[in-house]
Amino acid sequence: MDKKVVGILGGGQLGRMFVEAANRMNVTVRVLDPAKQSPAKQLGNFIEHIDEPFTSSSDIQRLATGCDVLTVEIEHVNCDELAKIEQQGLALVRPSSSTVRMIQDKYLQKVYLAEHALPLPGYAKCDTLDEAKLAGDAFGYPFVLKSRLGAYDGRGNYVVKSEADVETGFKLLGGKMQYAEKYVNFAKELAVMVVRRSGGQTATYPVVETIQRDNVCALVYAPAQIDGQVCKAAMKVATDAVACLPDGSAGIFGVEMFLHSDGHTVLVNEIAPRPHNSGHYTIEACNTSQFENHLRAVLDLPLGDTSLKVPAAAMVNVLGGANGHASVLEPCLASLDIPGATVHLYGKDGAKAGRKMGHITVVADCALQLRRRVDLIVGHLPNASAEEHSRFLYRSSCAPSTDGSVADVEKEDVREMAPLVGIIMGSDSDLPTMRPAAQILEQLGVPFELTIVSAHRTPDRMFDYARSAHKRGLKVIIAGAGGAAHLPGMVAALTPLPVVGVPVKGRCLDGVDSLHSIVQMPRGVPVATVAINNADNAALLAVRIIASSCPTYLHAMEQYMEDMRDGVEKKIERLGTVGWKDY
Amino acid sequence: MDKKVVGILGGGQLGRMFVEAANRMNVTVRVLDPAKQSPAKQLGNFIEHIDEPFTSSSDIQRLATGCDVLTVEIEHVNCDELAKIEQQGLALVRPSSSTVRMIQDKYLQKVYLAEHALPLPGYAKCDTLDEAKLAGDAFGYPFVLKSRLGAYDGRGNYVVKSEADVETGFKLLGGKMQYAEKYVNFAKELAVMVVRRSGGQTATYPVVETIQRDNVCALVYAPAQIDGQVCKAAMKVATDAVACLPDGSAGIFGVEMFLHSDGHTVLVNEIAPRPHNSGHYTIEACNTSQFENHLRAVLDLPLGDTSLKVPAAAMVNVLGGANGHASVLEPCLASLDIPGATVHLYGKDGAKAGRKMGHITVVADCALQLRRRVDLIVGHLPNASAEEHSRFLYRSSCAPSTDGSVADVEKEDVREMAPLVGIIMGSDSDLPTMRPAAQILEQLGVPFELTIVSAHRTPDRMFDYARSAHKRGLKVIIAGAGGAAHLPGMVAALTPLPVVGVPVKGRCLDGVDSLHSIVQMPRGVPVATVAINNADNAALLAVRIIASSCPTYLHAMEQYMEDMRDGVEKKIERLGTVGWKDY
Repeated sequence: MDKKVVGILGGGQLGRMFVEAANRMNVTVRVLDPAKQSPAKQLGNFIEHIDEPFTSSSDIQRLATGCDVLTVEIEHVNCDELAKIEQQGLALVRPSSSTVRMIQDKYLQKVYLAEHALPLPGYAKCDTLDEAKLAGDAFGYPFVLKSRLGAYDGRGNYVVKSEADVETGFKLLGGKMQYAEKYVNFAKELAVMVVRRSGGQTATYPVVETIQRDNVCALVYAPAQIDGQVCKAAMKVATDAVACLPDGSAGIFGVEMFLHSDGHTVLVNEIAPRPHNSGHYTIEACNTSQFENHLRAVLDLPLGDTSLKVPAAAMVNVLGGANGHASVLEPCLASLDIPGATVHLYGKDGAKAGRKMGHITVVADCALQLRRRVDLIVGHLPNASAEEHSRFLYRSSCAPSTDGSVADVEKEDVREMAPLVGIIMGSDSDLPTMRPAAQILEQLGVPFELTIVSAHRTPDRMFDYARSAHKRGLKVIIAGAGGAAHLPGMVAALTPLPVVGVPVKGRCLDGVDSLHSIVQMPRGVPVATVAINNADNAALLAVRIIASSCPTYLHAMEQYMEDMRDGVEKKIERLGTVGWKDY
Repeated sequence: MDKKVVGILGGGQLGRMFVEAANRMNVTVRVLDPAKQSPAKQLGNFIEHIDEPFTSSSDIQRLATGCDVLTVEIEHVNCDELAKIEQQGLALVRPSSSTVRMIQDKYLQKVYLAEHALPLPGYAKCDTLDEAKLAGDAFGYPFVLKSRLGAYDGRGNYVVKSEADVETGFKLLGGKMQYAEKYVNFAKELAVMVVRRSGGQTATYPVVETIQRDNVCALVYAPAQIDGQVCKAAMKVATDAVACLPDGSAGIFGVEMFLHSDGHTVLVNEIAPRPHNSGHYTIEACNTSQFENHLRAVLDLPLGDTSLKVPAAAMVNVLGGANGHASVLEPCLASLDIPGATVHLYGKDGAKAGRKMGHITVVADCALQLRRRVDLIVGHLPNASAEEHSRFLYRSSCAPSTDGSVADVEKEDVREMAPLVGIIMGSDSDLPTMRPAAQILEQLGVPFELTIVSAHRTPDRMFDYARSAHKRGLKVIIAGAGGAAHLPGMVAALTPLPVVGVPVKGRCLDGVDSLHSIVQMPRGVPVATVAINNADNAALLAVRIIASSCPTYLHAMEQYMEDMRDGVEKKIERLGTVGWKDY
């Protein structure tokens, strides 16, 4: 694809998946890594790799000599040497040494992002124990002490619980080069991958939710099950964060964020100047993977489309466990039986506890199916205690149901998911009529929202709701209305989504007024009208609409129809047994 | 994943993608291929490959000595040697030598499949020129002479046009080891990948359509745009063909078939005992790729799910052209700008004309979007003449539209696609009312079918139609009915799909009879009812339903709504200019 040779500092799993993408495009990658058989080197034959540390000046020079572009799979590299190579024009360095230098010092990164008006948790320099204590006064307890350099996967972080605890933390982190950060009470951790060419072309991947265990990324859900407004905010923060990086810095960046427990504030946690664990799912789930897009960016080729090509995806990290490779193999072997699961093993020798040995990507036709599939893997993860084997291990904010039955568990799952159906009604007086719609959706596992939107009393709200519905991820709107019953038709005029109208029976005219108002729409704008007061059927229609492109819900609808038939058959039997007189 | 070492005979692109799948699962593959830097060897470092021909006895023995399982990427191998290895128990051979031997001789393959009652075109042995002439008498002209051994990509085939032509063909093919085959007048060429474990577990990929150019596979569409019944028939033929192979033969098999021009007869063309060009799309488009499933099968691991994870996919082969590598790069570079396109280059040195140098997979949210994307690549293919650059180059059965406008071209495309919407009505007298639905769907590029189904006059047909609709690929059913108007509701009772009901106005009651019959469905079975006689709205609702999970049609619906607004704005302007008196 390109005759340029790319050199990469670091040959772990990120380098390995980068080489995999490069191989497909016939681009040669030369790896600098101390391990002779490092994961990345295993996939690249017929090129001379370098078996030396990626901090060694002479070896970085040696790498640059045979390469057109240098990139990194880790930020803890020798930036002085990279800067020298840039100055000498020996090779292009992407991302630039100044970007990597700023990012590798987490305190400088905070300062830089703050200067560029990115939203951040409070932070303060702590060169001395006194400064650390002052930070405690300023931020309150708990707060977090962090190493400025070399920190990753939670290493180099210390949560200070009280003033008495400050000294312990300060000393544990080495007594220097650290900073303090306000403890963020977060609802979810989010992440977005952003890829940028040196000319400025940028592409942004979907917002994902990351779930950490012992400070290591354990699970990623894509797309994040969050409100559309929060999603938009997180996209903007991530895009802004990458846009403010020093000029000409090309490559892919992982932006980790907190969604504050207030439910709407998005704060930047940190940026990684390289492919990121939260973007592994893109290999199977997006039109272009993060690794291919990183390659395109460093070669200055057009960026690939970053959209999801499947409705839902997850990534489960496979870490080394107590039983070495056996611990690693267990979840991988289990996933061979799970549709949509793909195993990635990194070719690492030692499977010591906590080491990232591989990951499993899972794709599904909907968020519900995804959870079911992920649950089947989680129980097989290494080092999970009996309690941790629980299907709730990886839930960010979901408490177990009272009786723990599967049906209840799924109902809880569904409440956590981004809504697919919006149920709206003109007034709370319509709720008794509309409630069965909610019950049916809950029963069939369809995530939904329910609120009041009145065409006549809240016209602005109606416009906003209808116009934004498809952007927020809704697939169907159910609108109930009585009398003049304008809501369904007006909403249909404002959204490209299918709108299901429920004529609500008023005090006069038996609901025929609502029925005719809803069904007799002019040519051009349809409302799917159901029977008067029949919100059950509105919900069932919504499920059929979703089911038409989603096997999981199609199966649920077939099951529902079978259950209806069985219900009638029981009545037939009883009528036969009891007789019509006593029935 | 598995400590077994797999040896593969042949190290071309099939071997390369096999090694790619094996790398992800940490399985070591040793390649036997005469080319030192063959495509497959490039991806496997730290294993000693063998740079010798895969027909050489001693080198196959050498390969087997270091491997647990041997497999092939090509059927033209030394089967005697493989049989010896099986007898010695030196390594498992998957697929078995007897299977490969039977398949590599295309005549024996025909005999074997015929013995197992597979549907085949007529064939006859032709050891002599006289036998070849007898075949001409029996099959008529044209018929096809084929080499029994070593044939691939159309090489070794000769179409005999007349009796005078028999001798030429017979001699061209070497005067021996050939057979005759009846010429099949086919509507489409279909293919199905089937994977099998030695214990019998089998998984079948979707039916795809393959389009050849100069006897080489040029383009693959998945799923094939064919009727659901034909699809089922093709799946059965392919599954039966693989099921009849000698016991214990594990691995993946590509079954090439003809769909006869009668529109329903499916005939086996030939079987490949290995990953197949028609299955490359599975890497990006299916839950498990053909290469990973082949690996799983030869290692006797559980087979992966073979379903499509995207709605539509295509594969475009990139062959060497007149300008060597430049010809190869052109379509690849063009595809960098096409969403959903992924380039695979095979790392081959010489790009001589016609050589398979790589392929491009394209995925899309619907068949229409897929065609649009494929069209953008086809024009960049090597060796395409000006005329061939036409977007019709790769169409199997589509004639250019009269004026060649894009809109017309798309309408033709749409007619070629499997229907997403079924329009049905109780009687042809409803057609004038229902016709606008068809027009709207055509206008918005939604493939559909239209037929008569009467609840009262053809109840059996109604049952069949409704029960099979979702299995045939329909997403929505539009049913028009007047008077008692039972059709929509009865169809809804028989299908899990959304049913849109159009009340048709009869001679009395102004259509209110139909409206109430259609809308007032009992709890449990919804019909999406639109206004009386408003088939336009039924179609628009169907589009919204499809659009709710498909960005391409969502965009089309948004455009439609903008056009409506613009249409009214023109009227407003005219009313302002002309005045209400003269309007």
